[in-house]
Amino acid sequence: MAPPSPSTTPKPRTIFSTPSCTFLFILTLTALTLYTLLHQRRHPYPITAAQKPSQNTLLHFRDTFLSLSSNYTLSTYLRNLTLHPHLAGTPPSFSTAAYVHSHFQSLGLHTHANSYSALLSYPIHSSLSAHFPNRNATTLHLSEPGSVQNGVVIPYHAYSPSGSVYAMAVFVNYGRAADYDALAALGVEVKGCVAILRRGNLSRNAAVEKAAESGAAAVLMYTEGVFRGGVERGTVNKGLGDPLTPGWPSDEGGERLDLDDSKVLEKFPAVPSMPVSADTAEIILRSLEGCAVPFGWRGTLKRGIGKVGPGPTMLNFSYQGEKKMATIHNVFSIIRGFEEPDRFVLLGNHRDAWTYGAVDPNSGTAALLDIARRYAILMRLGWTPRRTIILASWDAEEFGMVGCSLLPGSPVPMVALGCSKLEIVEVGSTEWVEQNLVNLGSKAIAYLNVDCAVQGPGFFAGATPQLDDLLVEVTKKVDELNPEGWKKLYEKWAATNDGITLLGSVEDGSWEWGLLSQIHRLGGIDSDFAPFLQHAGVPSIDLYFGKDFPVYHTAFDSYGWMTSFADPIFQRHVAVTGVWGLLALHLADDPVLPFNYLSYSAQLQSYTNVLRSMLEGLVSLHPITDAIQQFEAAAKEADEESKKLGEQDAVVDVLVLKKRTLNDRLMFAERGFLDAEGLEGRKWFKHLIYGPCSNSNSKLVFFPGIVDAMFPSTRVNQSDRQAAIQHEIWRVARAIERAAYALKGELT
Amino acid sequence: MAPPSPSTTPKPRTIFSTPSCTFLFILTLTALTLYTLLHQRRHPYPITAAQKPSQNTLLHFRDTFLSLSSNYTLSTYLRNLTLHPHLAGTPPSFSTAAYVHSHFQSLGLHTHANSYSALLSYPIHSSLSAHFPNRNATTLHLSEPGSVQNGVVIPYHAYSPSGSVYAMAVFVNYGRAADYDALAALGVEVKGCVAILRRGNLSRNAAVEKAAESGAAAVLMYTEGVFRGGVERGTVNKGLGDPLTPGWPSDEGGERLDLDDSKVLEKFPAVPSMPVSADTAEIILRSLEGCAVPFGWRGTLKRGIGKVGPGPTMLNFSYQGEKKMATIHNVFSIIRGFEEPDRFVLLGNHRDAWTYGAVDPNSGTAALLDIARRYAILMRLGWTPRRTIILASWDAEEFGMVGCSLLPGSPVPMVALGCSKLEIVEVGSTEWVEQNLVNLGSKAIAYLNVDCAVQGPGFFAGATPQLDDLLVEVTKKVDELNPEGWKKLYEKWAATNDGITLLGSVEDGSWEWGLLSQIHRLGGIDSDFAPFLQHAGVPSIDLYFGKDFPVYHTAFDSYGWMTSFADPIFQRHVAVTGVWGLLALHLADDPVLPFNYLSYSAQLQSYTNVLRSMLEGLVSLHPITDAIQQFEAAAKEADEESKKLGEQDAVVDVLVLKKRTLNDRLMFAERGFLDAEGLEGRKWFKHLIYGPCSNSNSKLVFFPGIVDAMFPSTRVNQSDRQAAIQHEIWRVARAIERAAYALKGELT
Repeated sequence: MAPPSPSTTPKPRTIFSTPSCTFLFILTLTALTLYTLLHQRRHPYPITAAQKPSQNTLLHFRDTFLSLSSNYTLSTYLRNLTLHPHLAGTPPSFSTAAYVHSHFQSLGLHTHANSYSALLSYPIHSSLSAHFPNRNATTLHLSEPGSVQNGVVIPYHAYSPSGSVYAMAVFVNYGRAADYDALAALGVEVKGCVAILRRGNLSRNAAVEKAAESGAAAVLMYTEGVFRGGVERGTVNKGLGDPLTPGWPSDEGGERLDLDDSKVLEKFPAVPSMPVSADTAEIILRSLEGCAVPFGWRGTLKRGIGKVGPGPTMLNFSYQGEKKMATIHNVFSIIRGFEEPDRFVLLGNHRDAWTYGAVDPNSGTAALLDIARRYAILMRLGWTPRRTIILASWDAEEFGMVGCSLLPGSPVPMVALGCSKLEIVEVGSTEWVEQNLVNLGSKAIAYLNVDCAVQGPGFFAGATPQLDDLLVEVTKKVDELNPEGWKKLYEKWAATNDGITLLGSVEDGSWEWGLLSQIHRLGGIDSDFAPFLQHAGVPSIDLYFGKDFPVYHTAFDSYGWMTSFADPIFQRHVAVTGVWGLLALHLADDPVLPFNYLSYSAQLQSYTNVLRSMLEGLVSLHPITDAIQQFEAAAKEADEESKKLGEQDAVVDVLVLKKRTLNDRLMFAERGFLDAEGLEGRKWFKHLIYGPCSNSNSKLVFFPGIVDAMFPSTRVNQSDRQAAIQHEIWRVARAIERAAYALKGELT
Repeated sequence: MAPPSPSTTPKPRTIFSTPSCTFLFILTLTALTLYTLLHQRRHPYPITAAQKPSQNTLLHFRDTFLSLSSNYTLSTYLRNLTLHPHLAGTPPSFSTAAYVHSHFQSLGLHTHANSYSALLSYPIHSSLSAHFPNRNATTLHLSEPGSVQNGVVIPYHAYSPSGSVYAMAVFVNYGRAADYDALAALGVEVKGCVAILRRGNLSRNAAVEKAAESGAAAVLMYTEGVFRGGVERGTVNKGLGDPLTPGWPSDEGGERLDLDDSKVLEKFPAVPSMPVSADTAEIILRSLEGCAVPFGWRGTLKRGIGKVGPGPTMLNFSYQGEKKMATIHNVFSIIRGFEEPDRFVLLGNHRDAWTYGAVDPNSGTAALLDIARRYAILMRLGWTPRRTIILASWDAEEFGMVGCSLLPGSPVPMVALGCSKLEIVEVGSTEWVEQNLVNLGSKAIAYLNVDCAVQGPGFFAGATPQLDDLLVEVTKKVDELNPEGWKKLYEKWAATNDGITLLGSVEDGSWEWGLLSQIHRLGGIDSDFAPFLQHAGVPSIDLYFGKDFPVYHTAFDSYGWMTSFADPIFQRHVAVTGVWGLLALHLADDPVLPFNYLSYSAQLQSYTNVLRSMLEGLVSLHPITDAIQQFEAAAKEADEESKKLGEQDAVVDVLVLKKRTLNDRLMFAERGFLDAEGLEGRKWFKHLIYGPCSNSNSKLVFFPGIVDAMFPSTRVNQSDRQAAIQHEIWRVARAIERAAYALKGELT
């Protein structure tokens, strides 16, 4: 039988059996391959791609951060922090450190502590009795009502020498040079007496020193307007950080000056002093006879206080204290950046308190702990900062400062009082900055400080000018609960400051220096930002609610007072926490640093206008104006580049380095204001734009070197004074030039 | 007719007609697509990819660089540079600057110059005559033979005061304290006389100052072993850079001290001085009578010189000079880095000369110009450095230094003479460093200095220790023509130094400090590296052939002398150019900086051993040894990371930043040795490991602060001295700690 014809045999079917479908297949395959690879190519490096969040993701994380706000957690933290007084160097203070440490750890954050042993000062015994003309002798109360005194250190002046004096009392008002002149004019002899003075804008140290110069044998200091007979504790030290390690870290086993070294002794006043309540002071003052109180002294003086003495009232003054080495602990929590781990954004607050520290400083500590909580949640949601964020809790700040607020009742924020009020810098942060100087100088983006987060109503902020824009931006995103309901923090802030004029001009040369900018500047040394900005040149910010509070450094600075008066429902805590945490998110995550140096150059220009109004014809300001022109040009350039680079968000490595390069310029510009020689006679202060002036007659809060030359504390002839001012003008001009070069990033 | 059976019809043939070949095709296609894309993926960014050379390409460029060596071009450059004398601030000097500028430009390199106006000093008139006992009066020659004098400035001491003196001559040997003691012991009265001294290891300024202290009315200075009656010019200034702008740049219109300002005057000696030839000096010395020359003074003293005087020979000494503002010019050529344009590798050489400057400094300038030529060729071949390379030609260095070599005939390289010989720092580079402090501090990788490139036979090098390895590596790649033929530079160098022991140990506490390391250290201020290392903390290297030369600062320092004696066929020029240029290629192109800090820590340890041998029991060295341990640990860590990262060469951006981060740590570590307060009494010198000591009795070339405390120039009681040494030990320890922290890159 014949075989079947081949034509009828079914051909084996393959997918390739027809050209068309084969082509289709190949196309699809190629397309797929291409797509996969090209797609991969957009994120060639999984590790990075995964970590590198888009702008949208960042926005999402920021909103989430704000949404996580909780007055409940904040109040809980504050309650726990203020259960007992925790004076630096005491066991309760250590347990507070442990609380912060374990809080960070429990959140799974990388946590560590470092300690220094520093010379602190504590009271052993104090007593005061008055012997009135009518022969009555009365023992006077030195401490607050027992109920609150419970475990609180008795009111004292840290670092005051011990001493007993039996002498006549004399009233010296605020203890300023002018006050002693007035007394002299009345023929009143202060020599050998116990001077009674009320706190003005002199630092405690300066006030006691002045009294000693005038021959007073001891000093009693009281503060007007304090809450329920509270007494204001504080330090009378004049040094920087640990008195035994000027300019270097006081780490275990390190170099220390002897207690009797002249460089140490000169930091302590020559005569003993004690703080007393306004009531106690008034009992004495009412009993004085002699000349009538000069008219100029009245005003806030209580009725019934009419004579200045001396005597006839005799005072039996006795104070015994001890200076001793104590261990202090700084606690850190570190969130390592994924892209630039070697760039640091620091958030800092001190932890030690004179008493319970509900306002000063633990309202800030509560905020720090809450930021840690919220960041920890963000991390669980997949967030890692581009740069490293460091949360720092400082110790022993109180032994190094005069107050995070100004004297109660004073009309303007302290910064407006000029730099004279404050004389010494916080211990814990200072020692740490001295120890980490090179790494901070080369890697720190910014330091964000919060000390007394909530003292009362009204938001206040200080900043170095390149951070003004960011600060305003952020306050427009954070809500605040007002009587009128929820509002953006910015609105009230702007309203109470009749418009946030970032650069208030003072062409008329009036004396409102402190208000040159509604965002005040950081020339004072009233909190831990001082070593960062004024010694290391790190751009800084300082935030707080309320510009003064009547329980300052008293036993009444308690959780109870906070909930009854300053922030019953903790909404101010919530607001400040939002601002603080959001600022850090921007500084840590923005591809290009949110620095605007145009604002800095404008600020420098307005300072120069003030100088011109005061120095017209006396000296030439052209060195500064020329330097500012250079600086402004560099700022414009940097600003344009920032905008251009900010838009590009590729992972191209050249671009990554381009951004790093620009950011480095933005970071190092502030360092240019530092001068290795520092301020004349106070060389630890290296920043020539912002730093403390030594003369209390000046209310200027900028160019401290120039200001010191303008208001010399000792008599100098006019031509020497002129030469000194001109030289300081040159120094400032060169500092501004250095900053301009750094901002340009080019060599000459 | 029947249709043909379909089976016979030929099927249309396509490439897809069979499964197998189709498969093959698809595979090939896919493979191709994959390959192309994957390949592309390795360099996803054309711009970068094009620029980012592989290790092999880099090797190729380095070999090419060496292959481009040419003694012809070098000799031509030197010829052109030395056609006429070119003292700083004079028109010929300006035309030399123009020559360098146009050379850079003609090569198509980005070129610019910056100028400063500084106070320089020039002679107007000088004369000297001797009145011998036999009543003969002889006018003595003050200048070299007329033939060479042609256009050369007459021999003088820059910044010497003008003055005329008629007085007896007296011989004071080297003018050291010991020499005056010896004269006093002999009852020889120097007061009112013209002191004749030979140059020892005191700086000119120190020698003249000492003579003035001893009452001398004027000084004649001569140098032994100088070529054919040449006279050694030089400066007697004691300042830093421009005397009128101490510590700040002397730019046009900037601040200047008055000429009669005490801070300026103290930099100039109190009595006039002049240099004379050895012959002239001997004519006078031979004529002296009085006491015999102390035995200890003989040795190199010419026969016939037997008495010290004073007199009877009377000298009629007269010098008139003027100090005036002159414009000086630094010339730069910049090759911008493609990846890290903001990281700078600097090559520097000064251009100004006392006379023709064939050795000092233009042998170095010729090398600089040749490096520019070779780099320009590399660029045409497609090379661009990863980091920015800057070629710098400095002006007015001679007015700020005592010599790039040591006094002729001295057995050890200058650095071994300790830091006492040199007292002031080069003007052009100093002003520039002061002006660019922030950018150099934050961006400068290294400064490579060549002053007198070729003085004679034998290669010498100085470096900060982290650069030792690189230096040795490079010398193993560069050829040198020896009598035995072509050899690697390293061989001869190692041989003459009986083996390059990077860390010669001096356990026995012998006095060979200068030879602690065969690569000497840069504690002296004998060339332009001083401001970079000792003021700005930039790792530095200094290179030269020949350790001294007999035409130093004389009119004989000419092209003729170079070709007849120092380098007839310019092979030493070729060698030094190769080393210099290759060092820069490594520092600019190596992905991870070729720094080895283990070598630094070992060096520090060996210094400490020397101190121990001298201070045993007097003070405690534990602060330094502890600090060195920390430093060593950090160095080990950094070393391992360098090795690990060095191997990975991807363009992954995280990796790019990782390298940048590590390199920053390596760069900033050296800055840690800086101390803002600087050296006691000489605060401009900020580096606590390497810097000049003020006391000439010390031969130590490290830890200048400690050394000054060990050898106080004024009498102090033992306990004060001990305390001062201990304090300086603490300061050095803290500096080493800072460097360790910077190298670790972590905050405490």
